[in-house]
Amino acid sequence: MPERENMEKITLGPMSYMSVMPTLLVGANIRGKPNYMTAAWATVACMAPPMVCVAINKMRYTARGIEENRTFSLNIPSLEQVVVTDHCGLVSGAHEDKSGVFRSFYGKLKTAPLAEECPVNIECRLFKSVDCGSHLLYIGEVAEIHAETSCVTEGKPDITKINPIIYAQSAYFGVGKRAGKAFSEGKQYKKT
Amino acid sequence: MPERENMEKITLGPMSYMSVMPTLLVGANIRGKPNYMTAAWATVACMAPPMVCVAINKMRYTARGIEENRTFSLNIPSLEQVVVTDHCGLVSGAHEDKSGVFRSFYGKLKTAPLAEECPVNIECRLFKSVDCGSHLLYIGEVAEIHAETSCVTEGKPDITKINPIIYAQSAYFGVGKRAGKAFSEGKQYKKT
Repeated sequence: MPERENMEKITLGPMSYMSVMPTLLVGANIRGKPNYMTAAWATVACMAPPMVCVAINKMRYTARGIEENRTFSLNIPSLEQVVVTDHCGLVSGAHEDKSGVFRSFYGKLKTAPLAEECPVNIECRLFKSVDCGSHLLYIGEVAEIHAETSCVTEGKPDITKINPIIYAQSAYFGVGKRAGKAFSEGKQYKKT
Repeated sequence: MPERENMEKITLGPMSYMSVMPTLLVGANIRGKPNYMTAAWATVACMAPPMVCVAINKMRYTARGIEENRTFSLNIPSLEQVVVTDHCGLVSGAHEDKSGVFRSFYGKLKTAPLAEECPVNIECRLFKSVDCGSHLLYIGEVAEIHAETSCVTEGKPDITKINPIIYAQSAYFGVGKRAGKAFSEGKQYKKT
């Protein structure tokens, strides 16, 4: 294993930190109208059944919609959609109608709006919400994945075609170079 | 908003999919010995108090250690550490002692081992574990963030210095170009 040069460590205090996160649009119907909110505090929560989770501030308009219908969507925008994506994080649906920002369609669950312009849409049925303090962690069972045909390789969404937006340190980043295959690179490891 | 050329959508079925995820090493003491497991299903769960979460298969050796001590760590490796990082996902601590893979140190919580060689370490106190099916979603309150001084800018971990590993589609990626500031890019948005 390569030794890193400067190993001196300091403590920074407790922070809601993660190295990299996905940039998403959380879709929810609120009083019958679709709304999209920018979020990044999301990941996979379970393999069987397939689940994802997203943390949302309790005060957010979107939280109301998720509680109302017990469904929501996670929509994956492409890097070229960074302006509209960030817009949905600047403006609250409580003050401005965001139902026209994307063309919405509905899938299996009927009440989780899906943004047509986003290359991938994850349709979710609420499994559980966990009260963590300022935020609710919404865990959703994945009911369906919708994807643009042009962004799919061998039946799966393809990162090189989607070109998703990474979120880190209040900024957006593209995906960099591929650095190897998981469950494979480690075979080179030698005990020292 | 730029129109995407091919908008035709297909359904791929329910999958545990997320566009991009962080590559981490989950540290836990098991029967008094440190162990590190590769994971990617992690994100921030709450702002106040600061919390993170990570999904771990119930069958994993690491789950035992988290239940035992109710503490764990999320260690952020650098892209140059991809071989040792992947190694920790290939080999289970139940079969092979991984306590020597990294030099461990302990922080506030005394029982969450922190990998010295990783540029950032998130020290966590277990807040709640949610049974999702195959996986347990461990939600941890962040007790402390440890970081190499050379990877810190203005009191925060700096992505350009850490060079973290992105996980997507069973492969590792580097971080690409910066594509703008959050809560800022959206100001250019024009209704159509």
